[in-house]
Amino acid sequence: MALSHHADKNDAPLPIRITEVGPRDGLQNERRIMSTEAKVRFINALSESGVAEIEAGSFVSAQAIPQLADSDEVFKTIARRPGVVYSALVPNERGLERARSAAVNKIGVFTAASDTFTQRNIHCTVRESIDRYKPIVSQAKQAGIVVRGYISTVTHCPFEGRVLPSRVVEIMRELLDLGVDEISLGDTIGKAAPPDVKRLMDEVMPHVGQAVLLSLHFHDTYGMGVANVLTAWSEYGVASFDTSAGGLGGCPYAPGASGNVATEDVVYALRASGASIGVDERLVVEAARQLGAELNHPLFSRLSRMHEHRTSHEVVP
Amino acid sequence: MALSHHADKNDAPLPIRITEVGPRDGLQNERRIMSTEAKVRFINALSESGVAEIEAGSFVSAQAIPQLADSDEVFKTIARRPGVVYSALVPNERGLERARSAAVNKIGVFTAASDTFTQRNIHCTVRESIDRYKPIVSQAKQAGIVVRGYISTVTHCPFEGRVLPSRVVEIMRELLDLGVDEISLGDTIGKAAPPDVKRLMDEVMPHVGQAVLLSLHFHDTYGMGVANVLTAWSEYGVASFDTSAGGLGGCPYAPGASGNVATEDVVYALRASGASIGVDERLVVEAARQLGAELNHPLFSRLSRMHEHRTSHEVVP
Repeated sequence: MALSHHADKNDAPLPIRITEVGPRDGLQNERRIMSTEAKVRFINALSESGVAEIEAGSFVSAQAIPQLADSDEVFKTIARRPGVVYSALVPNERGLERARSAAVNKIGVFTAASDTFTQRNIHCTVRESIDRYKPIVSQAKQAGIVVRGYISTVTHCPFEGRVLPSRVVEIMRELLDLGVDEISLGDTIGKAAPPDVKRLMDEVMPHVGQAVLLSLHFHDTYGMGVANVLTAWSEYGVASFDTSAGGLGGCPYAPGASGNVATEDVVYALRASGASIGVDERLVVEAARQLGAELNHPLFSRLSRMHEHRTSHEVVP
Repeated sequence: MALSHHADKNDAPLPIRITEVGPRDGLQNERRIMSTEAKVRFINALSESGVAEIEAGSFVSAQAIPQLADSDEVFKTIARRPGVVYSALVPNERGLERARSAAVNKIGVFTAASDTFTQRNIHCTVRESIDRYKPIVSQAKQAGIVVRGYISTVTHCPFEGRVLPSRVVEIMRELLDLGVDEISLGDTIGKAAPPDVKRLMDEVMPHVGQAVLLSLHFHDTYGMGVANVLTAWSEYGVASFDTSAGGLGGCPYAPGASGNVATEDVVYALRASGASIGVDERLVVEAARQLGAELNHPLFSRLSRMHEHRTSHEVVP
């Protein structure tokens, strides 16, 4: 994965790369456990929508995240579309073994920019998490598996408050030193506003070379997801975003709140702002709608509400 | 109302002025007819939240908008908080009489930047609508009532497609020539993205003198409301916005879709971006929550989802 996916302000804009995280980050925050069949149907539908990548599961322990206990089975059953990358989270060597058996194209290792959050989330310090990932990254790369390094709480931590951009850069550099191919920076609790994104990007961008794919991962807890995506794209040329079909999921620290920013809303916003993007948001909405029926709650993305109602009431183009 | 409410980029930023339109624009698109008591409770609760103005009703015919048929009674019953402006829509001289009896502080006359939309909405051309408002504006001003001129479909018309900024400027100038004190520009179907807002503002701002309050009125049908507000505020110094508590309402051309951009989401976004804003979004959420219980559908604003669930599950600051 030796391609940069952000452009200099003066370069021709890159086509947008969407990593659909609904099947992992979305579902992991949904209370009702979905059947393997429902997940496979969801992923297969998303595979047709034009997204570059689908984070289809997580090889953490079944006790930690019961919703994703069947990731092995999901990976075995999905119909992989050529050109789409299928990825999964991996917390340890056991997880890497499972990921290899499942023939994932990419693994994600995950830490955060806050020690308290990391302690609560994966029961170690940031330093310890990075040390723990060292053999995993190396083994994955030997096996030809691309590695993404997630950093959570890049602007705000639910326990420590504001996070310094310099801390994010420090951890990002350590992950890159381990050999991760790409970085995803997450505003885990969705509190960031465009000025926070700018402060972060001002420090991060000089460290992101042409060999690193940088993805941004926004949650819509406070409704800031779309504005933050547009800021990163229009002002820094960031062209890779993690989003979730239907805005699935939530915030583990505010159950019931909005989840990842919705894929379809981001696709609309970027295209309407002039970006080149090959995702058909109607297919994303339809994939989420099918799953939403089984989740038994309405979808909260703007476009899923709009499209759902237009099917029966359309009076305008 | 001889105060400008937008600032030069280099001036100190103005405090944000929120016109809460939930009781009018929000409710008018809700199917379930609310009782007068519910509306009064809603308006009284909003009066305590710090919003500058509440559009509390509409003096159109009861057949046209049954939901707002009791506006006279609503205005009689609400507890007016000193300093808060209570306004209503007025389509004709009969409406103005009712507005005067109701002792409104401000009336709104409304046209659009598209003839087709205006024909479908108020059964005349834009030209005819402006001629029709001439005596109304003049009588209102003689009676000491402030007049707002609404222009709908300022970027997109559901029937004619894209709208030229020059057309908006033309109509805005005609309304100002009639003597309206302020202008509200509405993206009625919520399709605008920040570049559309910029194209519009680039043409509008040179015509907005120090004697005109300019408000922007975004709908969240496509999830663009917050991003558009932030663009207008951060790049043009616009500081007055029309928003709806709980994101109430919808789009008459896509029933079930999101309504006006939510007051609480806009308040969060602006404050988190550094704006000075004296609205307590928790009080707005609570006002909308009470009404939402009677509307019998969930509220879709990001903050109302978040706050609602935090009451019982709060684990973080």
